[in-house]
Amino acid sequence: MTSLDELPLRPELRGRSPYGAPQLPAKYRLNTNENPHPLPPELLADLGAALQRAALDLNRYPDRDALALRGDLAAYLSRGGGEPVAPEQVWAANGSNEVLQQILQAFGGAGRSALGFTPSYSMHPIIAAGTGTAWVDGHRRADFTIDPAAAAAQVREVAPDVVFVTSPNNPTGTAVALDTIATLYEATTGVLVVDEAYEEFARTGTPSALTLLPGRPRLIVSRTMSKAFGMAGLRLGYLAADPGVVDALQLVRLPYHLSSLTQAAARAALAHTDALLATVDAVKAQRDRIVAALPGLGLTSVPSDANFVLFGRFADAPAAWRALLDRGVLVRDVGLPGWLRVTAGTAEETDAFLTALGEVAADHRLGD
Amino acid sequence: MTSLDELPLRPELRGRSPYGAPQLPAKYRLNTNENPHPLPPELLADLGAALQRAALDLNRYPDRDALALRGDLAAYLSRGGGEPVAPEQVWAANGSNEVLQQILQAFGGAGRSALGFTPSYSMHPIIAAGTGTAWVDGHRRADFTIDPAAAAAQVREVAPDVVFVTSPNNPTGTAVALDTIATLYEATTGVLVVDEAYEEFARTGTPSALTLLPGRPRLIVSRTMSKAFGMAGLRLGYLAADPGVVDALQLVRLPYHLSSLTQAAARAALAHTDALLATVDAVKAQRDRIVAALPGLGLTSVPSDANFVLFGRFADAPAAWRALLDRGVLVRDVGLPGWLRVTAGTAEETDAFLTALGEVAADHRLGD
Repeated sequence: MTSLDELPLRPELRGRSPYGAPQLPAKYRLNTNENPHPLPPELLADLGAALQRAALDLNRYPDRDALALRGDLAAYLSRGGGEPVAPEQVWAANGSNEVLQQILQAFGGAGRSALGFTPSYSMHPIIAAGTGTAWVDGHRRADFTIDPAAAAAQVREVAPDVVFVTSPNNPTGTAVALDTIATLYEATTGVLVVDEAYEEFARTGTPSALTLLPGRPRLIVSRTMSKAFGMAGLRLGYLAADPGVVDALQLVRLPYHLSSLTQAAARAALAHTDALLATVDAVKAQRDRIVAALPGLGLTSVPSDANFVLFGRFADAPAAWRALLDRGVLVRDVGLPGWLRVTAGTAEETDAFLTALGEVAADHRLGD
Repeated sequence: MTSLDELPLRPELRGRSPYGAPQLPAKYRLNTNENPHPLPPELLADLGAALQRAALDLNRYPDRDALALRGDLAAYLSRGGGEPVAPEQVWAANGSNEVLQQILQAFGGAGRSALGFTPSYSMHPIIAAGTGTAWVDGHRRADFTIDPAAAAAQVREVAPDVVFVTSPNNPTGTAVALDTIATLYEATTGVLVVDEAYEEFARTGTPSALTLLPGRPRLIVSRTMSKAFGMAGLRLGYLAADPGVVDALQLVRLPYHLSSLTQAAARAALAHTDALLATVDAVKAQRDRIVAALPGLGLTSVPSDANFVLFGRFADAPAAWRALLDRGVLVRDVGLPGWLRVTAGTAEETDAFLTALGEVAADHRLGD
């Protein structure tokens, strides 16, 4: 094998490691914000039938524009009432990562820049780098919230071509107020991407940025079926925006990027939306249980609208992470000093997590 | 809807159209080099079972490194004898388009360049543009073959970071001699990508560039399951190269890019390789039938090692394309003056194509 140093790799990639959570054996895998609930049996049956049907034409290219799927996704996004989302406002790809990559190819790229408010979804700067887009860290307050005036001032000063806002934010968990998003939209001349991967888990009364779309052609709201829909293995991300944005993405998308199986499976799942989203309330209850139990252990959390909780503070978060793993509970060290992130899943997972945490909290929490 | 002109799109994308063959209604669709043979029944049964099994874990992320699938692909590539291909030499993505995009992200990109010998697969320059890689047209002889000495001289002069050779070439159909590929490898300090999407259709005695891999760490051979395997709807492209190249691509791949369903379906298909490749000989027979019939119509073709034939010459290829479409036969106008491309498929498709061509050849062929 030839070492990377001997290959004509792009210089900025030298010394890098592939992105990804460590895939370690553990009884309780609470590190990648998966939905622990398997698909309901009635969906599994329909899914099997839909995939069998799709397989009959597998020798043919898929629908390049995924029109039927985009129609179903638009109908889902229109459920909440308010301004309906039309199929031509929707675009889908292999995970929201690919959606975001296409956005950066069309609106970012070499000689352009993107700004996101750190800490946030760690793939944003990585995908930016993969498209040659310069990255600028946006500022947050010490409590991880975004100061609208300061953020808008920074956006005006930096003038990025793409602004990312993750809401609810990952890894901190808190949703961003619509006022803040509207303020940032006014502050930028680029596109504003609101990454709503975890939106379905938001606390009651937390509206989606979808409601801001009318009259804002540079606003993009991205979503995924990996989390609330419990289909991380499907790799289906999507967005809603002005139809002009969708036209722009079609200039950079790889033709036939979404397989016939992906399109068929996603459509079968969307036909069972109610059954799938029934797990959301159960997951939220576990999240709230985790949040409520932390003070009793001398710990705290960041307010969460997601299916995970950022908890702490620890004197040495990597040591606390290791101590939990030793007890069979794999959580995520997201690199924030003093904090760890845990996925909210089943009651059994919460039990195991809180038991393990109870055993290690006193030894590892930050002293007064 | 906001027009693209009002959005902050990258300037080089303005005025472009999305790539893709026109999707027109036609009785005989011979324009995208699909394999017309549906999957064999025994594979369909296994595929259904494999997808059902994969669906049980669809709430979990897929194997990020697709290790089992890469093992199966390596075994397939090792069938021919010679130096076996190891799993760590193989990488897979959503269609060879995504494989090529990842290669350009790692070894091309902004400030770097790629060179391919025109006319060739039209996605090469488009994917280069999507990654910010400058594109240089390489030269061919008037008969569409590559002159090894002239090509090597051009590569030395331009010094591209990525060189593409399509073999068998699309849209012309002819395989490139291994001597030429070896000469080009010596001429470049960048990576040399041999796009072998149609390799399984090559005429007897036409070896794959896989045989050149040992000792050439900058050589990459890309393949697809869309053509010979008859699974265009699956979107599974792959490559073989030095393991160091695979390590490099893992720095730019989007994590979990290959869905659980894609991995399961591809593995099920590879377990039926013999049954799937049984269609290859039938398709080659139809290709050779088309080639043999052309002189009788006053037409000619470019020697083909693929599942298509570039045929002509016409006084006005777009007019001939239209005349064929009027008779229910959709072929591809690839933009080469005087030439059209037809996919070789079933005997019935060949009958229909040759009948329609017989009706229009005299009116449209280039006069003496």
